[in-house]
Amino acid sequence: MAKDSTGQDILELRSMPVETMESILATAKEMKNIVLRDIKKLPTLRGRSIINLFFEPSTRTRTSFELAGKYLGADVVNITTSASSVVKGESLRDTLLTVEAMGVDVIVMRHSAEGAAHFAAKAVQPIIVNAGDGAHEHPTQGLLDMFTIREKKGTIAGQKIVIIGDITHSRVARSDIWGLKKLGADVHLCGPATLMPRDIGELGVTVHARVEEALEGADVVNVLRIQKERQQKGLFPSAREYARIFGVNDARLKLAKPDVLILHPGPMNRGLEIAFDVAYSEQSVIQEQVTNGVAVRMSILFQALMGGKKIEAVD
Amino acid sequence: MAKDSTGQDILELRSMPVETMESILATAKEMKNIVLRDIKKLPTLRGRSIINLFFEPSTRTRTSFELAGKYLGADVVNITTSASSVVKGESLRDTLLTVEAMGVDVIVMRHSAEGAAHFAAKAVQPIIVNAGDGAHEHPTQGLLDMFTIREKKGTIAGQKIVIIGDITHSRVARSDIWGLKKLGADVHLCGPATLMPRDIGELGVTVHARVEEALEGADVVNVLRIQKERQQKGLFPSAREYARIFGVNDARLKLAKPDVLILHPGPMNRGLEIAFDVAYSEQSVIQEQVTNGVAVRMSILFQALMGGKKIEAVD
Amino acid sequence: MAKDSTGQDILELRSMPVETMESILATAKEMKNIVLRDIKKLPTLRGRSIINLFFEPSTRTRTSFELAGKYLGADVVNITTSASSVVKGESLRDTLLTVEAMGVDVIVMRHSAEGAAHFAAKAVQPIIVNAGDGAHEHPTQGLLDMFTIREKKGTIAGQKIVIIGDITHSRVARSDIWGLKKLGADVHLCGPATLMPRDIGELGVTVHARVEEALEGADVVNVLRIQKERQQKGLFPSAREYARIFGVNDARLKLAKPDVLILHPGPMNRGLEIAFDVAYSEQSVIQEQVTNGVAVRMSILFQALMGGKKIEAVD
Repeated sequence: MAKDSTGQDILELRSMPVETMESILATAKEMKNIVLRDIKKLPTLRGRSIINLFFEPSTRTRTSFELAGKYLGADVVNITTSASSVVKGESLRDTLLTVEAMGVDVIVMRHSAEGAAHFAAKAVQPIIVNAGDGAHEHPTQGLLDMFTIREKKGTIAGQKIVIIGDITHSRVARSDIWGLKKLGADVHLCGPATLMPRDIGELGVTVHARVEEALEGADVVNVLRIQKERQQKGLFPSAREYARIFGVNDARLKLAKPDVLILHPGPMNRGLEIAFDVAYSEQSVIQEQVTNGVAVRMSILFQALMGGKKIEAVD
Repeated sequence: MAKDSTGQDILELRSMPVETMESILATAKEMKNIVLRDIKKLPTLRGRSIINLFFEPSTRTRTSFELAGKYLGADVVNITTSASSVVKGESLRDTLLTVEAMGVDVIVMRHSAEGAAHFAAKAVQPIIVNAGDGAHEHPTQGLLDMFTIREKKGTIAGQKIVIIGDITHSRVARSDIWGLKKLGADVHLCGPATLMPRDIGELGVTVHARVEEALEGADVVNVLRIQKERQQKGLFPSAREYARIFGVNDARLKLAKPDVLILHPGPMNRGLEIAFDVAYSEQSVIQEQVTNGVAVRMSILFQALMGGKKIEAVD
Repeated sequence: MAKDSTGQDILELRSMPVETMESILATAKEMKNIVLRDIKKLPTLRGRSIINLFFEPSTRTRTSFELAGKYLGADVVNITTSASSVVKGESLRDTLLTVEAMGVDVIVMRHSAEGAAHFAAKAVQPIIVNAGDGAHEHPTQGLLDMFTIREKKGTIAGQKIVIIGDITHSRVARSDIWGLKKLGADVHLCGPATLMPRDIGELGVTVHARVEEALEGADVVNVLRIQKERQQKGLFPSAREYARIFGVNDARLKLAKPDVLILHPGPMNRGLEIAFDVAYSEQSVIQEQVTNGVAVRMSILFQALMGGKKIEAVD
């Protein structure tokens, strides 16, 4: 249960060493064969216990982690806020201490507050895997995007990767930027000016006001999901306006490289940030991202719990 | 993961070949011994993954499938709409593609739209088991009713089976009718005239306006659950009126054969569609239907995933 | 599945024989080594099925039982009222009959009605474990408190144990009183006079109006959680008043023995019934109670299902 100094917590890509990323991506490649049933499942994590501790609802990410744990034979228990004692006013720290005291090995945690995962990693012994903390980071999504790009393009270095949407409020964008930059990508951002982060200079990326300019010669386009809740607060143009100005459609994609790759973290608002044709085009790898997500999470759980041991068939 | 042409999807009884029904019922007989603990559990589905994808809440059916999967050693993951990304506006097709991409073997699906299971079967590769689609069909309920009748009566052919209630809105009634007719039953329906399906001629059944007439000489009575929600829309007589006109009570049951069998899909509104005394009478097999439901679902999961292999003790 | 006369149901401490308590506490000691990962998990309950049937939400207790079952290799299925057919008006008895018919071995049940667990034990065959029934009892909490006190103090007999809070509405208090008295503790109660049970004489405890008097020379203090819902009904002083009059803080604890032990069933309202400093003091064993809770529940499940067999490593 002890957490040593090798940093098995997965909190953010910003501070994650390149070797750790590379190691996760390499093991994910092997894990993908299990997800695709090309090789048998390995109960290597039998006897280990994982808690999905979700303070925000997320079927997609929760299910991905649940299956990742179960494919490796671990016990997985779900806690969501809806039925949680957090409702009764218990502090985050107390909840974490309680979960720790129950003897679990890994806490996969989603929380609406930035830094919640870091807080958890300091508060308790079990390995913390950040499944999204406010607008800060969503490192497993970043890693699955990196996995997908490298698998399809052969490399990340030198690729022109364009991220389009509400960058300020996107933890996906933030994890992508940190991860992709470290592996040498040429990262471009595009979205409403009011929704561009202020620390943009620090990120080492290129910002475009016009989506046509951003897409010019792109190798990869990652279309972010538009949060309709935020639009209603007036920070966004209307849905129709957004689609007209920033929507990724076939016409606009002609500006990108012919073999451009289309990513989207899901779930999609088709017809809004992404056109129907684009979503299901040959260049779209949106469904494959989901498979890669399970593989990356298996890799993370495996490495965190097995300390980098070689995978071996057991059953 | 591949779905071949042998038709392992369980979508409806209307088009299901008699041999498939017979095979499911035969294996269910063996499975029932596991549910009753007369023989040890068999982890024959170890390493297989089942998703319960429920767009309508249903503890009863969800738990039945979850236990069926776990009794055979499979991993079972639950997704219900309450916490689902469907809430965020994702289309059914996208949800199915996402679940498929996670590498699952079977999707057990409940949805409020008729035809949703057929849609799913065309959209994705994993085996689809229909756990109820609108007012269309609930094939596993139909099969468990058939199993129960045959177990108690020896045969289905020639039995006078009376289904009482809101036939139009009942997927249970529809699956029962198709399944029972194929195995030679003499099926009779009774309920408020406004709630009789229009395609009644096509079904090859006898319709009765008066419940006394329907019950005359009956071998089996299946009492449907009254959906109070529908009553409130004015389609129904009041609860008291319904009980008075159609309620199955001891006095009325005297018209049926002395060894008449009482079925109900549950949960019961006792005192409404079924009298307390009838619900817990010697002739009631309502609780045993639940056991048979787990057995039938084990049979379906087993056959779908193992392709009809003979069951053998493994553990 | 059969329930024999050896009384494996865990319904209340009031009528539980001392030998049963002692046996549960002894096995829990061994189980704690599994929770702490000092020894390997034992899949001794593989093939057994446990249903968590919760008619009141409780993440803490539900998760504790779920992990207890899974640490021993059992299948665990959760049913909570939110999505349950109870919503549809099914009676408690029908729900229990349905769960029984599905072939489960143990029903862990929480319900808002006093006596619900006793009702269940009479209604169905599977072993019933009471996870809280109204204001009646919460026997597994009582046992984990007893386990914690004995582990820290060496013995329960002769210890001055003070329970502070809303005694009338506390099932925790009630189980503690019955269990601790049987093992020879000197039990003292303190709380608002309007919230003291009327049957106080029968309990064989000492009641104090002033918390300072209660704490005088205490070996153990169990601080109950204040239910804010009840305050709003006017039964309670305001939160501020309660903290001022009954709140357990450092100053007041100076009246107790220097090595006084602080317990709390969680989740805490810090600053209300318990001061922050006290909650995280050296004398607080609140987090360890959680670990002991999993151990005690493992012990109960193990004994209930294995009939007191000696634990042996299997995997």
